[in-house]
Amino acid sequence: MSYSDFLATALEAARKAGPVIKAAFLNRTLQGTLDLKSNTSDLVTATDKAVEALVFAHIREKYPDHKFIGEETYDGATTELTNDLTWCVDPVDGTTNFVHGFPYVCISIALLKNAQAVVGVVLNPILGECFYAAEGSGAFMEAMDGTVHSLPLYGVQPWKGLSASLVATEWGYERDARLDSKLKTLDSVLKAPTRGVRSLGSAALEACYVARGTFDLYWEAGVHMWDVAAAAIIIRESGGEIANFVVVRDESGKEVLDLKQRKFLFVRAVEGVLRR
Amino acid sequence: MSYSDFLATALEAARKAGPVIKAAFLNRTLQGTLDLKSNTSDLVTATDKAVEALVFAHIREKYPDHKFIGEETYDGATTELTNDLTWCVDPVDGTTNFVHGFPYVCISIALLKNAQAVVGVVLNPILGECFYAAEGSGAFMEAMDGTVHSLPLYGVQPWKGLSASLVATEWGYERDARLDSKLKTLDSVLKAPTRGVRSLGSAALEACYVARGTFDLYWEAGVHMWDVAAAAIIIRESGGEIANFVVVRDESGKEVLDLKQRKFLFVRAVEGVLRR
Repeated sequence: MSYSDFLATALEAARKAGPVIKAAFLNRTLQGTLDLKSNTSDLVTATDKAVEALVFAHIREKYPDHKFIGEETYDGATTELTNDLTWCVDPVDGTTNFVHGFPYVCISIALLKNAQAVVGVVLNPILGECFYAAEGSGAFMEAMDGTVHSLPLYGVQPWKGLSASLVATEWGYERDARLDSKLKTLDSVLKAPTRGVRSLGSAALEACYVARGTFDLYWEAGVHMWDVAAAAIIIRESGGEIANFVVVRDESGKEVLDLKQRKFLFVRAVEGVLRR
Repeated sequence: MSYSDFLATALEAARKAGPVIKAAFLNRTLQGTLDLKSNTSDLVTATDKAVEALVFAHIREKYPDHKFIGEETYDGATTELTNDLTWCVDPVDGTTNFVHGFPYVCISIALLKNAQAVVGVVLNPILGECFYAAEGSGAFMEAMDGTVHSLPLYGVQPWKGLSASLVATEWGYERDARLDSKLKTLDSVLKAPTRGVRSLGSAALEACYVARGTFDLYWEAGVHMWDVAAAAIIIRESGGEIANFVVVRDESGKEVLDLKQRKFLFVRAVEGVLRR
């Protein structure tokens, strides 16, 4: 079974989920039902749960022996990321945006092998942008059928230094020491200076916007594996880098992305500036 | 001459400018030519200048006796905001986004009377969203002809407190004490806590997203009059509030927006939290 078959399955699942997410986004009454998870900033809706079930069912029918990790069914105590083929899904990345009617909302589907992403699909059904990649086959962005504003995929831009960079970051929903650390980093980044700082509220889409050449850098601490697994392969296949704050190597000494760490840094060539 | 005639003229000018901005946005080579104003974060392109000239010419033909203030022709030493009928234009709000291919780019056109906005148009030709309002006639959002993702105008949302709010802010291009003050405010806002903080890089669009009910609050220090003049009337006509940090009153004691102050705060009902 080649990666292109896995990619085709991921695209099918994402395209099935897209209209479900879009219909709920446009129908504000559906968004009224929301749970609060750990605090007032961490939202989950019925759509998150329905979409995860739909995507898992679609993929499981084709690959019953694969493993599955999804944001809504994740249980830190029993769900473990192994080296087996594992589908890692965030049914709605940008749930807060979804609830507030801000169109940076996407479904993110990744296939992991040896705990590294080999296939990734990030689809924003509201703005009609679909990013996807499979290891060794490049990264692509398509405007979905029926949408008009098809933005070209410029590709990762040559690194011109922080002062010529548009930087994206997120505040997450933690309100602890991690936040103080982020605020300190923002202070340094803004005074570096940069061209500007943007926050869209979707880690997966902000990472894909680095692949598209819109942002030059996306940096965040505290993301979950499902936020960035699909984007990781899209970034790499479009010529960009994604790395942990602290370098992690596999047994052969090769640098890898530790998806369990919840600390990430997307770079082009900024080790001197942001790497810790 | 009624406000609806002025609004029709502003919409004509914006719709003439839209395709010029969109074509340049999609053609990255045109964006290559850029000047740096005061520092590396303050960009201006040939498109900014061409669009301002086009819009002024269109309006001046109909209203040769009106005054004009535009971002690209503004001269702090000689341009003064008076009580006369004055068109205030930002040809490309979000120039940095424009240069980097991030679709939050708009043209903003306002008509001021007694230094208060009475007509406003904010048009994003990339995402195909046009917000407009005239005093006493309500505020509207239209999806432009040819675009598919038509987002409903939810209207300003009932204020549910900061903890249920999605807040927008900008970092601007100043790297001085104003920035330290903003970072302190962000620290308080994030810990309040809120639902999240977003930064899109266009004051006019972020303000219109309050009118649309996507953001509950937009707050910024240091904007210019052309960044928010059009949005000011759109906000008010959609039931929102726009006010200075420090309350300013006219001769009759009524609170007004001082567009010369370069200090603004968009509120629904948060005086106790953010007002200074």
